[in-house]
Amino acid sequence: MKNTQLRLGRRPQGEATMEDFEVTSEDIPDLGPGEVLVQNHYISIDPSSRTHWNDGQSYRAMMQIGEIVDVGTGGEVIASNNPDFAVGDMVTGGLGIQEYGISDGTNLQKADLSLAPLTSWMGGLGITGLTAYFGLLDVGKPQPGETVVVTGAAGAVGMIVGQIARIKGARAVGIAGSDEKCRFLTEELGFDGAVNYKDDLYGGLRECTPKRIDVIFDNIGGPMLDTIMRRLALRSRIVISGATSQYNTDDIYGPKNYLALATMRARMEGFIIFDYTDQYQKAREDMAGWMKEGKLKFRENLMDGRVEDYPAVLHSLYEGSNTGKMLMRLPAAQA
Amino acid sequence: MKNTQLRLGRRPQGEATMEDFEVTSEDIPDLGPGEVLVQNHYISIDPSSRTHWNDGQSYRAMMQIGEIVDVGTGGEVIASNNPDFAVGDMVTGGLGIQEYGISDGTNLQKADLSLAPLTSWMGGLGITGLTAYFGLLDVGKPQPGETVVVTGAAGAVGMIVGQIARIKGARAVGIAGSDEKCRFLTEELGFDGAVNYKDDLYGGLRECTPKRIDVIFDNIGGPMLDTIMRRLALRSRIVISGATSQYNTDDIYGPKNYLALATMRARMEGFIIFDYTDQYQKAREDMAGWMKEGKLKFRENLMDGRVEDYPAVLHSLYEGSNTGKMLMRLPAAQA
Repeated sequence: MKNTQLRLGRRPQGEATMEDFEVTSEDIPDLGPGEVLVQNHYISIDPSSRTHWNDGQSYRAMMQIGEIVDVGTGGEVIASNNPDFAVGDMVTGGLGIQEYGISDGTNLQKADLSLAPLTSWMGGLGITGLTAYFGLLDVGKPQPGETVVVTGAAGAVGMIVGQIARIKGARAVGIAGSDEKCRFLTEELGFDGAVNYKDDLYGGLRECTPKRIDVIFDNIGGPMLDTIMRRLALRSRIVISGATSQYNTDDIYGPKNYLALATMRARMEGFIIFDYTDQYQKAREDMAGWMKEGKLKFRENLMDGRVEDYPAVLHSLYEGSNTGKMLMRLPAAQA
Repeated sequence: MKNTQLRLGRRPQGEATMEDFEVTSEDIPDLGPGEVLVQNHYISIDPSSRTHWNDGQSYRAMMQIGEIVDVGTGGEVIASNNPDFAVGDMVTGGLGIQEYGISDGTNLQKADLSLAPLTSWMGGLGITGLTAYFGLLDVGKPQPGETVVVTGAAGAVGMIVGQIARIKGARAVGIAGSDEKCRFLTEELGFDGAVNYKDDLYGGLRECTPKRIDVIFDNIGGPMLDTIMRRLALRSRIVISGATSQYNTDDIYGPKNYLALATMRARMEGFIIFDYTDQYQKAREDMAGWMKEGKLKFRENLMDGRVEDYPAVLHSLYEGSNTGKMLMRLPAAQA
């Protein structure tokens, strides 16, 4: 049995293209003691993956040239020497871009399909949802009646941030890149307002945030964040979750309005989801509960592809046409 | 008796010059009930004053064209209808750039000359020192053994920040613009390290901060802050106290390394000293105590001038030649 893999071939300049990767094919080795063989069904498509391909500092080890591209995965256990995992179990984990992955189990989580499909365990109930949950509640700390603005609001993290903000009694305003996405936010997800940044971002914001902004949950960065910062309220919080607009450039756009932090006694703060590992369980219970009550909706955007299609699928994410959690569905799940 | 005053004539473009101001001369009116007449001896020279002359948002009302330029002052009560103030009392306050000021007493504080001279009450024991105290202790929160880096370290606020950091058991590293200032910081004030930013800022920092940086207390902004942010430690705090390098331009330099806030789980936060009014007394007692024990030294840089010399004196501050709290000494105190 052969395993097709995508490896980092060189460090990309700007946006990654197929030339930056290398497709390899290997025999699958025999399982050692305690090991689990997983056939991947889904590959998580995350803008932040790009940041691991640079040289330099990050919150995790940089990927080395020649390594299998390190992303989140979902799949099925097809062989197991590990008593915690049985053949047929559906699992999420970080097995990287390949058809099959071998794990000692420590980086796998079983997905309870009676609660939600595997794709939701890779989205709203996975790292994506946890990022929204802890970033908003632990860093942003919205209070009832406050106004939360989220960028990339129709994206995987953003759509959950807005819904949790509302669950906590805050007003949710989303920034997105089309009228269709804005309608999705207000009509399907219950956001209190949505602004198409391709129209008049500041004018739209002013209308949607009459009492200014208490929490910005930022996934995009760049001039968009800068414009939004002009609407900060006193003692507001800016959660730096990501900066999709800045991942493909070396010439980062710094927020010129950072002095508003002084005038507004505000703070801008980052976080790393892996610091919250010991609270994942509680968060997943909260979110599954809200999901059951109909207060929290997930959406996944599945794109069929093979391992070698990853760069093209990632490109479509950067183009801004995505709504919800984007996953590449591998042939194993396309049947 | 005539009172010479400096008024805002128009909103400056870039650095303010004499053409942006208007010198007026008025009769001093009779004192009303409860009023106090103060002859100003000193005018506080603060880079942040420039920010009040722009149109637009700030933490306080913008100055209007035609108003007396609003800065901190120190002087002597020469007439009083207010039982709280006697002729001969030395007071600090915000009477603006003029030879004489009338107040109902609410914006005046008596200076206890048995403890420190009037000039210290305008510096280390005044708003300047309070800014260092609350910004460092309440926002930066340095812990024993942590490393604090302060920009504009030989300036009025910076020199106090470093000394308080040491009093609290942290390591203090100052950034300043000459070898002479660096020697002043390490040899006279006891800073653990100092870097002349005109040499190799990053290289010097790396040497002085082997365990990276836990607190940045920033008075300068611009590319300097950006470079320093490359040395942030996990869970570090950046205190935005000022941005002297950015006050004379409309094209603010935003910190390109702001994404380090995410990778380092760090935060950047501003504050306004006037939020701490009810704690001033405690802070002043702390600082006066440290001063008596020889742990906290103040330095004032007095420049003789008349009301109309203010723009030139302020210019010398921006030129970077100042060490300590800069005050313009008016003729009333030059005798």
